Amino acid sequence: MSGEDLKLLGTRSSSFVWRTVWALKIKGLEYTYIEENLYNKSSLLLELNPVYKKVPVLVHRGKPICESLVIIEYIDETWKENPILPEDPLERAYARFWAKFSDEKLAESAGQVLRTTGEEQAKALERMTEAMEILEREISGKKFFGGDKIGYLDIVIGWSAYWLQFLEEVGCFKAMDSTKYPCLHLWMKNFIEFPLIKKNLPTPDELLSTFRPYRNMILARTKG
Amino acid sequence: MSGEDLKLLGTRSSSFVWRTVWALKIKGLEYTYIEENLYNKSSLLLELNPVYKKVPVLVHRGKPICESLVIIEYIDETWKENPILPEDPLERAYARFWAKFSDEKLAESAGQVLRTTGEEQAKALERMTEAMEILEREISGKKFFGGDKIGYLDIVIGWSAYWLQFLEEVGCFKAMDSTKYPCLHLWMKNFIEFPLIKKNLPTPDELLSTFRPYRNMILARTKG
Repeated sequence: MSGEDLKLLGTRSSSFVWRTVWALKIKGLEYTYIEENLYNKSSLLLELNPVYKKVPVLVHRGKPICESLVIIEYIDETWKENPILPEDPLERAYARFWAKFSDEKLAESAGQVLRTTGEEQAKALERMTEAMEILEREISGKKFFGGDKIGYLDIVIGWSAYWLQFLEEVGCFKAMDSTKYPCLHLWMKNFIEFPLIKKNLPTPDELLSTFRPYRNMILARTKG
Repeated sequence: MSGEDLKLLGTRSSSFVWRTVWALKIKGLEYTYIEENLYNKSSLLLELNPVYKKVPVLVHRGKPICESLVIIEYIDETWKENPILPEDPLERAYARFWAKFSDEKLAESAGQVLRTTGEEQAKALERMTEAMEILEREISGKKFFGGDKIGYLDIVIGWSAYWLQFLEEVGCFKAMDSTKYPCLHLWMKNFIEFPLIKKNLPTPDELLSTFRPYRNMILARTKG
């Protein structure tokens, strides 16, 4: 779909941005992508998201929408074809519950693991493990969280299927274990092989070249 | 509306519970209320919300829905009359954005202020002040966040119109200042005077008798 006056402000390394990209792709929407440098934020970003000064920001007909989960719901409510959230209110509630859980428990602790070392990192890794154990039970017996095809929860948790390996490499830790989380492991494989996702991912180098200096900068600050 | 097989597990002192009560009342729904003791959680609560073990939990036809914002959206999507969220996708996005902001910035820091003293409390109070300044600009010129009548964002931020004064009393701090936040102050007055809200509030004693021992317990732990 073209001519929608859609812009997306993002950074190539952010999984929060990519989940909104996946939502736009599910809907078949065309948009202009604007790469932001988070170490030197543009006046456009500061103007469009003055509260958080973060990406992603979706701009539709000049109106900014911020926060990735809010953006995905906006996309799903504005363009009805190829629904992202389930239709049934109870299933919608469960999808929103698990999205919040995975962002607050899994994504938060993964970020923390990347930013720390030693005992602090071990504690964050423990929180991550707890979240993965819970999600392992949740995905058990399903191809995707959304059922037979990817949906809201898949694109929200999707970062773990790709970003996690690079976080592990840079942060010198190991969270994923296919024998401990066989169902989550299978879901990750299915998710990453899903054509729409496979075609829309950053390169390993884009992630590594962002995570490495980020971790070093944070660790240098903590020491200093 | 009766015969809906609706139960709500809550505690009388929790504003997260009351926002779901207000949502149920807006819809005119009847429900069975079950008071939980968070210091001695029932097996029912542990079974219905095994992930967080928290209230509120709404149980509709035997199915549990957890997390207050998820519950409100569920209520609004299941019973369409007297809408709580705006109809327009952009307005819905803005309501969700500010709800997340107020929970993450205002409610979080208010809880922190209650649990701390000294420098730590001063820092949390500063975060609270920043959030209030932002919300002051947001509510400026409007009777309610929802327009002429209370809506989603009003019932999400509504705790600040009533709970805050008791948090201030118990935590020995002052966050609200009607000269600094005249629009927020007026909104608080309008909100608390709204008949449906006025009739559905805990008593001051229910709040004070919960917050006092809670703060003392946390401070004793921190010292120990």
